[in-house]
Amino acid sequence: MLDEVLRTIDSNLDSSLARLFEFLRIPSISAQSAHAADCRRAAAWARDELAAMGFEARISETAGLPGVIAQHHQAGPTSPHVLFYGHYDVQPADPLNLWHADPFEPQLTEGPRGKKIVARGAVDDKGQVVSFFEACRAHLTTTGTLPVRLTILLEGEEECGSPSLIELLTSERQNLAADFVLVADTNMWNFQTPAITATLRGLAAAELTITGPSRDLHSGLFGGIAQNPINALTHVLGQLHDAEGRIQIPGFYDGITPIPEQLQTSWENLGFSAERFLGEVGLAHPAGELKESPLAQLWARPTADINGIFGGYQGEGAKTVIPSSATAKLTFRLVPGQNPTKILENFQTFVTARLPPDAKPSFKISGASPGFAVSLEAPFMHAAKAALAAEFGKPAALIGGGGSIPVVEIFKTQLGLDTLLAGFGLDDDAIHSPNEKFELACFHRGMRAQARLLAAFAQM
Amino acid sequence: MLDEVLRTIDSNLDSSLARLFEFLRIPSISAQSAHAADCRRAAAWARDELAAMGFEARISETAGLPGVIAQHHQAGPTSPHVLFYGHYDVQPADPLNLWHADPFEPQLTEGPRGKKIVARGAVDDKGQVVSFFEACRAHLTTTGTLPVRLTILLEGEEECGSPSLIELLTSERQNLAADFVLVADTNMWNFQTPAITATLRGLAAAELTITGPSRDLHSGLFGGIAQNPINALTHVLGQLHDAEGRIQIPGFYDGITPIPEQLQTSWENLGFSAERFLGEVGLAHPAGELKESPLAQLWARPTADINGIFGGYQGEGAKTVIPSSATAKLTFRLVPGQNPTKILENFQTFVTARLPPDAKPSFKISGASPGFAVSLEAPFMHAAKAALAAEFGKPAALIGGGGSIPVVEIFKTQLGLDTLLAGFGLDDDAIHSPNEKFELACFHRGMRAQARLLAAFAQM
Repeated sequence: MLDEVLRTIDSNLDSSLARLFEFLRIPSISAQSAHAADCRRAAAWARDELAAMGFEARISETAGLPGVIAQHHQAGPTSPHVLFYGHYDVQPADPLNLWHADPFEPQLTEGPRGKKIVARGAVDDKGQVVSFFEACRAHLTTTGTLPVRLTILLEGEEECGSPSLIELLTSERQNLAADFVLVADTNMWNFQTPAITATLRGLAAAELTITGPSRDLHSGLFGGIAQNPINALTHVLGQLHDAEGRIQIPGFYDGITPIPEQLQTSWENLGFSAERFLGEVGLAHPAGELKESPLAQLWARPTADINGIFGGYQGEGAKTVIPSSATAKLTFRLVPGQNPTKILENFQTFVTARLPPDAKPSFKISGASPGFAVSLEAPFMHAAKAALAAEFGKPAALIGGGGSIPVVEIFKTQLGLDTLLAGFGLDDDAIHSPNEKFELACFHRGMRAQARLLAAFAQM
Repeated sequence: MLDEVLRTIDSNLDSSLARLFEFLRIPSISAQSAHAADCRRAAAWARDELAAMGFEARISETAGLPGVIAQHHQAGPTSPHVLFYGHYDVQPADPLNLWHADPFEPQLTEGPRGKKIVARGAVDDKGQVVSFFEACRAHLTTTGTLPVRLTILLEGEEECGSPSLIELLTSERQNLAADFVLVADTNMWNFQTPAITATLRGLAAAELTITGPSRDLHSGLFGGIAQNPINALTHVLGQLHDAEGRIQIPGFYDGITPIPEQLQTSWENLGFSAERFLGEVGLAHPAGELKESPLAQLWARPTADINGIFGGYQGEGAKTVIPSSATAKLTFRLVPGQNPTKILENFQTFVTARLPPDAKPSFKISGASPGFAVSLEAPFMHAAKAALAAEFGKPAALIGGGGSIPVVEIFKTQLGLDTLLAGFGLDDDAIHSPNEKFELACFHRGMRAQARLLAAFAQM
């Protein structure tokens, strides 16, 4: 039966592509209010496609751009229930002059890996969304139904920070009950190797301002005797890391969950080259904890980065000023097991304990989110690994992510759902950049892989 | 004879004051080109005054505003030769709304210490210059001559950085030969106590930029593995001082001349209150070397201050960026015996040795000047101490200065001359600020003290 579904996908590639092109022609740029109507057109297009396939599909309004909710529950109440998440909005296309063609007139061009689809949204996220739609269509046209209960949720503001997503989840809570979330907005490890993103780092942010004298002072009149807040700021922040690269905030590493052996083995087999990765941005040496592998530094170990610093004179030449204050902005990338609130508290203790007299700290703390790790033993993980291995002829890479994907955290906290991250983009797809592309082969295999995933979930 | 000179000063106080008021009415703001003609008027006024007293006086043109050169050599070739330096230009008067009267319509008002002269330039430097002129006048009208050979040099660009001073000294070199320079552009220790500024700190400036990745990076994609130049900058600069406040640059304290006992004793007797001094700017703790007295931290010990720092994101909220570079601007206040060039070299070594891999430093070095200490045994010092003690009934405080007075360095390097710094301003005269004032008593005693100084120099 699955073979027949896959054959349907293969023989309908042209019409699948035509439908994707229709979707791509709608300039649904959520960040630009001039495109609000286009965004609504894109939502309507998706709703209509899904309704035509037999879904109960509708627009769900929010204070911002609407969501699309579609349900196909024919598989029955004992069947696993999958919640697919995607987004119909795209990034702005500027700078337009760097595009080889109109970003909203999709092109099929020849590239080193065969044909590729070039357009704004080609992969992020319209290409991935349509891959999934077409996998559903193939099941429906071949078998008359879907192997699992499925709810599809598309939002229209992912590219501008999902300001209405929590509202959408709250108002639709009873319609979004599911066993887990499936997100395809991620990449393969490489053109040959599918990937499941098994860990993500969380984030905590703090702004530290140190105030010294009540006004800027002349260093000739006060230098030496007056506390200099920039000196004090560097004095404290210079102690954040020891010589081995370990972060010195008390309790910083408390509670960290060790990386499961299965993940560790997967990472070791990825053939990751730190030299090549860093070489592309002019660097040569992994800068994290000496004892950790480069990939662990990137995916499995927490960080303390100063993202911004300022104080005193920034103009040309020299100015003999002792400024009244100096500020640094920091973020901590966090891994599973770390408590973001505790980390931020301990950072404040760390700073305060190290400040000289007359250097008064003040802190601004912004939102904190913990690290994420999907359970490797979850039934949907086993199903996904089997499905991807069958499609690609090799096991999926279990990879990590150095950043956070906010929706993963939101689904966990709002709906209590775990997320399976398995998408078919490539690192060089130029998302958010000119000439965004999606390899035709990735689109095609993405559809086949999604069809296999739906079938595999039915066996959980 | 000197008594008669002093009596002349006392009985002519009103006409001295009237002449000062004439000078003060000329808005000779060197920083504002709209006042260029006023500056020239002020120069001409000084020239005419000096010529009327019997000096050979003339304007000396430069690329900028002119100098005034006046000579009175009647005392003969074996007499000591004094070069008096002052300036006829003043600071801008803004903010005008904070003045109680027109800054260029001098007022004689009542204050806690008796009458005071209020006007822009009242003390800085027109009041001090006229004090000296009037002392000369008293000698000339009483005795028909001056006790020493005297050359007077006034510049017109002191308030905007003396851009033409070196040109002036170069073109007038043969006319400026003298035994030492007398500068009155400084303050008394307090209303009762005259002061000689015996030491000044020099300055060396360095700008350090650390470059990491070739472009700004997303900390989610690169955090942990990529060198962060702000982290590296704080790491290095945080090591500038040890726990005792000592600067860790190798050889930083090499060659420092110990403070002569005479100076140390003078400082101990000044009754300086660090608590009050720091309290006025919201501080409470002397921040320099723990083992040094507050006054030594201010006047006799070198410093390393970061005057400005910047890198990465400075806007509102957080941004998860690892910037490509970060910059700090530093100045070192230097004391006699330190070699500014060596200090800057050693700073570069210090930084380079402490940087992690992938953090590439680049340096911009600006002008460096050494610390200054007048010889306490110079004949003009003995003469000055005797003259000031006689006028004030107590010895002059031998004080230090935490900053530099550029002309002192320039006279040393350009003309090879030492400088005697003895002026009659007070710390609360509000120079460069609204309602600048000069106590009438300071003007009066300044004239008398200058008359005594001229007489004392003749005895050297």
